[in-house]
Amino acid sequence: MNQDYIVPDNWCIIEEGFEKDRVMQSESLFSLGNGAMGQRANFEEHYSGKTFQGSYIGGVYYPDKTKVGWWKNGYPEYFAKVLNAPSWIGIRVKINGEELDLNTCKSVRNFKRVLNMKEGVYTRSFVATLPSGMEIQVNVTRFLSLQYDEVGIIRYEVTPLSEKATITFESYLDSSIENHDTNWEEKFWNTLDVKQVGNRGFIVADTKKTAFRVCTFMENRLEVNGVVSNIQKVNQKENYIGFVYETSAEKNQTAQFEKYAGYVTSFNHPKEKLIEETEQLLLKITALGFNELLKNQKEDWDEVWQMADITIEGDVKAQQAIRFNIFQLNQTYSGKDARLNIGPKGFTGEKYGGSTYWDTEAYCLPFYMATKNAEVARNLLKYRYDQLGKAIENAEKLGFKNGAALYPMVTMNGEECHNEWEITFEEIHRNGAIAFAIYNYVRYTNDFAYVPEMGLEVLIGIARFWHQRATFSKDKNKYVILGVTGPNEYENNINNNFYTNYIAQWCIKYAKECLDKVKTSYSDDFERVWKKTNLSENEIEQWLAVAENMYYPYSEELNIYLQQDGFLDKELITVAELDKKERPINQHWSWDRILRSPYIKQADTLQGFYFFEDHFTKEELARHYDFYEPFTVHESSLSPCVHSILAASLGRMEHAYTFYLRTSRLDLDDYNKEVHEGLHITSMAGTWMSIVEGFGGLRMRNGMLHLNPQIPSQWKSYSFKVNFRNHIVTLQVFPESVVVSNQGDTSLKMYVFEKEVEVSDQPVRVAR
Amino acid sequence: MNQDYIVPDNWCIIEEGFEKDRVMQSESLFSLGNGAMGQRANFEEHYSGKTFQGSYIGGVYYPDKTKVGWWKNGYPEYFAKVLNAPSWIGIRVKINGEELDLNTCKSVRNFKRVLNMKEGVYTRSFVATLPSGMEIQVNVTRFLSLQYDEVGIIRYEVTPLSEKATITFESYLDSSIENHDTNWEEKFWNTLDVKQVGNRGFIVADTKKTAFRVCTFMENRLEVNGVVSNIQKVNQKENYIGFVYETSAEKNQTAQFEKYAGYVTSFNHPKEKLIEETEQLLLKITALGFNELLKNQKEDWDEVWQMADITIEGDVKAQQAIRFNIFQLNQTYSGKDARLNIGPKGFTGEKYGGSTYWDTEAYCLPFYMATKNAEVARNLLKYRYDQLGKAIENAEKLGFKNGAALYPMVTMNGEECHNEWEITFEEIHRNGAIAFAIYNYVRYTNDFAYVPEMGLEVLIGIARFWHQRATFSKDKNKYVILGVTGPNEYENNINNNFYTNYIAQWCIKYAKECLDKVKTSYSDDFERVWKKTNLSENEIEQWLAVAENMYYPYSEELNIYLQQDGFLDKELITVAELDKKERPINQHWSWDRILRSPYIKQADTLQGFYFFEDHFTKEELARHYDFYEPFTVHESSLSPCVHSILAASLGRMEHAYTFYLRTSRLDLDDYNKEVHEGLHITSMAGTWMSIVEGFGGLRMRNGMLHLNPQIPSQWKSYSFKVNFRNHIVTLQVFPESVVVSNQGDTSLKMYVFEKEVEVSDQPVRVAR
Repeated sequence: MNQDYIVPDNWCIIEEGFEKDRVMQSESLFSLGNGAMGQRANFEEHYSGKTFQGSYIGGVYYPDKTKVGWWKNGYPEYFAKVLNAPSWIGIRVKINGEELDLNTCKSVRNFKRVLNMKEGVYTRSFVATLPSGMEIQVNVTRFLSLQYDEVGIIRYEVTPLSEKATITFESYLDSSIENHDTNWEEKFWNTLDVKQVGNRGFIVADTKKTAFRVCTFMENRLEVNGVVSNIQKVNQKENYIGFVYETSAEKNQTAQFEKYAGYVTSFNHPKEKLIEETEQLLLKITALGFNELLKNQKEDWDEVWQMADITIEGDVKAQQAIRFNIFQLNQTYSGKDARLNIGPKGFTGEKYGGSTYWDTEAYCLPFYMATKNAEVARNLLKYRYDQLGKAIENAEKLGFKNGAALYPMVTMNGEECHNEWEITFEEIHRNGAIAFAIYNYVRYTNDFAYVPEMGLEVLIGIARFWHQRATFSKDKNKYVILGVTGPNEYENNINNNFYTNYIAQWCIKYAKECLDKVKTSYSDDFERVWKKTNLSENEIEQWLAVAENMYYPYSEELNIYLQQDGFLDKELITVAELDKKERPINQHWSWDRILRSPYIKQADTLQGFYFFEDHFTKEELARHYDFYEPFTVHESSLSPCVHSILAASLGRMEHAYTFYLRTSRLDLDDYNKEVHEGLHITSMAGTWMSIVEGFGGLRMRNGMLHLNPQIPSQWKSYSFKVNFRNHIVTLQVFPESVVVSNQGDTSLKMYVFEKEVEVSDQPVRVAR
Repeated sequence: MNQDYIVPDNWCIIEEGFEKDRVMQSESLFSLGNGAMGQRANFEEHYSGKTFQGSYIGGVYYPDKTKVGWWKNGYPEYFAKVLNAPSWIGIRVKINGEELDLNTCKSVRNFKRVLNMKEGVYTRSFVATLPSGMEIQVNVTRFLSLQYDEVGIIRYEVTPLSEKATITFESYLDSSIENHDTNWEEKFWNTLDVKQVGNRGFIVADTKKTAFRVCTFMENRLEVNGVVSNIQKVNQKENYIGFVYETSAEKNQTAQFEKYAGYVTSFNHPKEKLIEETEQLLLKITALGFNELLKNQKEDWDEVWQMADITIEGDVKAQQAIRFNIFQLNQTYSGKDARLNIGPKGFTGEKYGGSTYWDTEAYCLPFYMATKNAEVARNLLKYRYDQLGKAIENAEKLGFKNGAALYPMVTMNGEECHNEWEITFEEIHRNGAIAFAIYNYVRYTNDFAYVPEMGLEVLIGIARFWHQRATFSKDKNKYVILGVTGPNEYENNINNNFYTNYIAQWCIKYAKECLDKVKTSYSDDFERVWKKTNLSENEIEQWLAVAENMYYPYSEELNIYLQQDGFLDKELITVAELDKKERPINQHWSWDRILRSPYIKQADTLQGFYFFEDHFTKEELARHYDFYEPFTVHESSLSPCVHSILAASLGRMEHAYTFYLRTSRLDLDDYNKEVHEGLHITSMAGTWMSIVEGFGGLRMRNGMLHLNPQIPSQWKSYSFKVNFRNHIVTLQVFPESVVVSNQGDTSLKMYVFEKEVEVSDQPVRVAR
């Protein structure tokens, strides 16, 4: 049974009732983020029960010394970890000297968490009866400002319900933090300075090794009935600073405590000026005050939703789920900073440490492209361009030469972090996704200028890699790519993975196509790049020889491309025939058994059909879908979305809808029993694609938007928006028709149900 | 350049001159062992320079918690480690209060180490000038008694050369020992008791987790000019006991210090009686005294050599090398105890932790069979029989059923210890070697009774494993074995490794053959085993279906079996064409590059041709040898011996001799720059095979010994002995003829140069 305690609601994630064994799950689900930082929904007050405390800063990481059983040449020295940062949310609360701790209260009534996704605000309220019998009402509001992305705001209100009470708040910063995920149980922070300046508290700490400097700060305000209290006492320790405030409140009178806190870091400020710049920031923030900041927050989130919202009518759980996915993606990455990227768990946990996987290019880019703008998407591409040098070094470590680039499987700063040979060295298809993202970006935005400016160098490095990585088989009289792991990580060190071979040759051809186009239209850039990369016509010819004579495993009998050499030697027992007790196989089977089985962790050959849909006929797609889907166990969160999109494109809407459900409520319903570790952020972009590309049938062809929407029979209607070349196109889909509108300055020609439609600011209804 | 400081000598390993940066190498090369315990040749006196202290007890190990980067289902919880045990050799020496430390002496002259392999005695002598200018002569003799295998004896003599001196000896035991090889930097010993009883010192300590209890003990004797000194002082700490003796010696007068020490353990004695039993032992030992024990030692080693010696005339380095190999094998394993086995580094280091690999069955068994007796070889087989239950459990963890057995890759007590999926789960050919050893044993000893008694159950477990592990490929209409690592570990997760598939079907057929024979001739045993294993005719038929319809990758064009599916897709560049700077490839290349290369770490297809020589023609052998040898990098110490034997069998004596040199002086000349870590014990048995089976051409056919000796052109003659069914057969090989003799009670018919010869106690000369 999956988890089922989140109350269905169109705009909010709601938990009602306090259950100790849901605390860690809810800490993930109610996480907050603003693209620059994020945190799990830990309680502000002391909590002695089971909890996973987490607060993270974008780009601030620690290179944890690699841990392996047996070292292999080429393994990275370290694994860069998202870093649990000093905590600033803490507010200890005492009523008549008795500590508020939900774990020890006599009773907790009316407990309710609400994550209001429309407004980007998290509230929590409850009535607690303390061990002494004292009853209090608590209301907490918290948000991380989108506008001032170094700041978080908490309003913590306590109302005595039994009788007048003395209420003490100890608001603190704490840098004695530990990472849950550490290879060698080391601490990752050095505290340099713990300091009070008037109303303000500061802890300045450096990350070990990487020496990021972070000033964690706070300023507080306590008010009862219009009377503001001052700091009564300061508790200062090596890694801690706490300001104690005390007040008394009559029965039913509310003590309102506000905390303005957050991080100012050397990632964005000069190291030596952190406290100074923090003080400037606090001046500005406290002048605005809680209500103004909250108002801004609502407006800013409203702007996000104006562009990114998807509505679903007739299915509140589906509505809640898609908004949750969109909300979390926006909390994780704002696109303002090309040094940041999208970690698989965002700011909600520590698993998978490093920030960037091929998930970004293969799954996340379309979402940000369509719901933000070209600039945000460009920043995602620029991230890789900026790391090209490291990708070349990475390839050199593996014996490649002459500027060949292999992008890392997992990275923070461009260096490879992963340490399993079958992934680190062999899951090289990731390089293909990085090239494909350039193609996808240009196709969607028409910003070809990115190519001469930056993309071409990336494409050359990637083409060089594939050229060198392929080897010639005399036996086959073709180029082969030996010893790889495809997207389906349930196969390791295989030969001629169809997806890898296919994207490899495509990368070369696309690089050549771009070279030609840049040569013609951007001759200055062409010359600069040609010289810088030391390219020659001869080398390009060698690339093309590989691309044009690539081998693809194929079964003449079945008329399908094989996932890899020898796939048909397997015992082809479908997933449906498997004993349910054996699933998920990654929790029940040893690795060898998984490897020799035909089971597919995530779309592999079909990932190729998804990327290169236009290269294959619908019949070919159907044949491959029918062959591979029965062996696919979808034990990666990135798998169901691709199958959903392909099923929709084959008109198999029941299939498509089943896969959609699986992806959209993965975390809310905790399908994989691991939501306490954090959310599956990158797969949320896949959920978005399932609607827009899957049900909505959105495609780009020859620079034109094509829409072939279908609707699941369970829904009355749904709608989504995309920012297409500065036209905000809204598509409303009903069972019998669709309505398209366009908020751009000019009208837009597009295809709906393969009919050309010109849409200006007047909505156009097109019958199915 | 390889190391070249060992002085050539027929019977001794000799080092002359003191060089600090050779200390760790010599500590390995001069190691002592007696089958029950062993130790590196660490100095007795304090040494402040670089050293690798090591003293090990057979069967006493620690289960070190597994360390991996990424956990996979089925990985073992721990890796059993040979355990560095409390040290008993220590004797601190002070001259007039000044400590003797070769690292700080003004000069060290006439330094000489001699490992007298004939006698099993290690001596060390030098003249040291202490920082004060005091000059002393030191002579040390040390041996580990073969007869009393819990005891080691040291005679440490100090002679002042400058003037009369006060000499202090602090003889100690120390249990504060650390393993060099530890995953988590834990200590592995709990000291329970540190105790003096009269002249005797004891430390009783338990290994953590495994709770082996070890009493480390000593008794000392100091004599100068007939006067014996008593203990002057006892230094006792938590993990240490030292007895201080003081005497004075005139110039040129010798102070003679003797230490009787060692281990009495719960492996062989009741836990609570260790000190009591140690006292009994010491009574016996000290009554015998140094000279008598030394005499016994020489006699016991003489007995070993009577049976095991190989002589080589005309090549002193080859002579020294082969005796070194034979000596070390005898130091490592005596065959007295079926609970013990042969670790890759014996008692000379800690690398590869666990004690037993397939090395034992594939490489070591023939040596012990021929130079000891059937009982010793039977103990090696019984070791696996005793662990059959664990092998079945091990297979169950990987999803096999119904009594299928998978023997571990690395083990102490039968449980798998290794933690790389490509080895632990996939290097399953090891199961084949265990079955082959039974066949080899029976073939050589004619002790078929082992099969009904124990071997049959092992064979059934193994046959079941192969039957279940093979899967049916509809595509090939054959059984295939997918996802394995063959003996060539430079290929992982390959399909249809020829060697694995071949030995798999052989195991099944041999199991069936044995079943039939036991049914006919040992009907009681047959019924017992049939019932115990719950076997049925139907199951056996299923096994045979697999064996008889097994797939082998084959190239019609080249007329050879392929190492695995797809081998011909590789870029077939020979080792000779490789840049020497890239070698050894395992130190220069990343793992993926090694995997997709054609390079072979150790004999793989050719290992099959070695085991099953009679299944193939000489032409087939030559074809396969010519194909695979050019791609073989021999980066395993177990590789050159097989190539040497096969080259000899093809009459390619120059090749055979080159490989022989590489294997025989691997450690003495430190080919792999790693002798400081310990010796390559198991490959030493391969060296022995290179002479006996390679040059000597010894084969078993239809119960008869066949000898087809050749001689390297570099040698004048050589000889070896084998214990063949209680006949001690000596073969002397000259360029033109051979002389065979037989020390058995009856004459023995055999084939020499394929001529039948009957040999009684009179040597027979047979012309070539």
